[in-house]
Amino acid sequence: MGVVHKQIGGDRNFAWEGVEAEPYQGGGTSEGSCRHVLIGPKDGAQHFAIRYFEIPPRGQSSFEHHLHDQGVMILKGRARVLLGWEVHEVEPGDIVYIPQNEQHQFENIGDEPLGFLCVIPSKEWLARIQTLGQR
Amino acid sequence: MGVVHKQIGGDRNFAWEGVEAEPYQGGGTSEGSCRHVLIGPKDGAQHFAIRYFEIPPRGQSSFEHHLHDQGVMILKGRARVLLGWEVHEVEPGDIVYIPQNEQHQFENIGDEPLGFLCVIPSKEWLARIQTLGQR
Repeated sequence: MGVVHKQIGGDRNFAWEGVEAEPYQGGGTSEGSCRHVLIGPKDGAQHFAIRYFEIPPRGQSSFEHHLHDQGVMILKGRARVLLGWEVHEVEPGDIVYIPQNEQHQFENIGDEPLGFLCVIPSKEWLARIQTLGQR
Repeated sequence: MGVVHKQIGGDRNFAWEGVEAEPYQGGGTSEGSCRHVLIGPKDGAQHFAIRYFEIPPRGQSSFEHHLHDQGVMILKGRARVLLGWEVHEVEPGDIVYIPQNEQHQFENIGDEPLGFLCVIPSKEWLARIQTLGQR
């Protein structure tokens, strides 16, 4: 069955019916950050997940690299993004694609919370693709 | 390498650097609709794609069902959504998950263009995993 999560937070304050905000442990300065899994296993989604992250001013996401690639759309606030060895500034509506294994980090450089969508392939599915692909 | 597509269309008029708007052939009344592939094969993304669709007032997306599931976020306008046998009304910020093989259709019921993000798993990977999984 299809699923609808209504946005109930108001104009610039995102929250969704049927979706809990979880604390998000990002980098060293991510206190007060949170993650909302908008579409994921609870909705029956097996191939990808869509999450919403919110990071307070001066906060950062983890400095990391990993097997899953990521697609990001900035929804509010301003960020500096480290992509490999490049640094970009991004604003609402901007799109960022982070390939597999590329080191990356988001830092909120504005005065309001930084909010962004982040799409990832399902980690289980990715592992299965890798296993099957090696046959 | 990571990719950034800056949003260059202004406040409520989406367009992105490095992304072309393609005509989108939806249902019977989709004239003037378009699709922007924000993240896809051109960016090196193999596991999922993120597209932005825009449908004019009274326009509709295709009435369809298919192997790939879809995750949608409404960005502007108002829509009526058919999900299986259920009908929902959705607005900016609302999230819709459409499972594999569920019939669905979006209709613009507002006065401005309906704009939404749509995430799909890569069709190639989905086909490949089905083929390999059956061995």
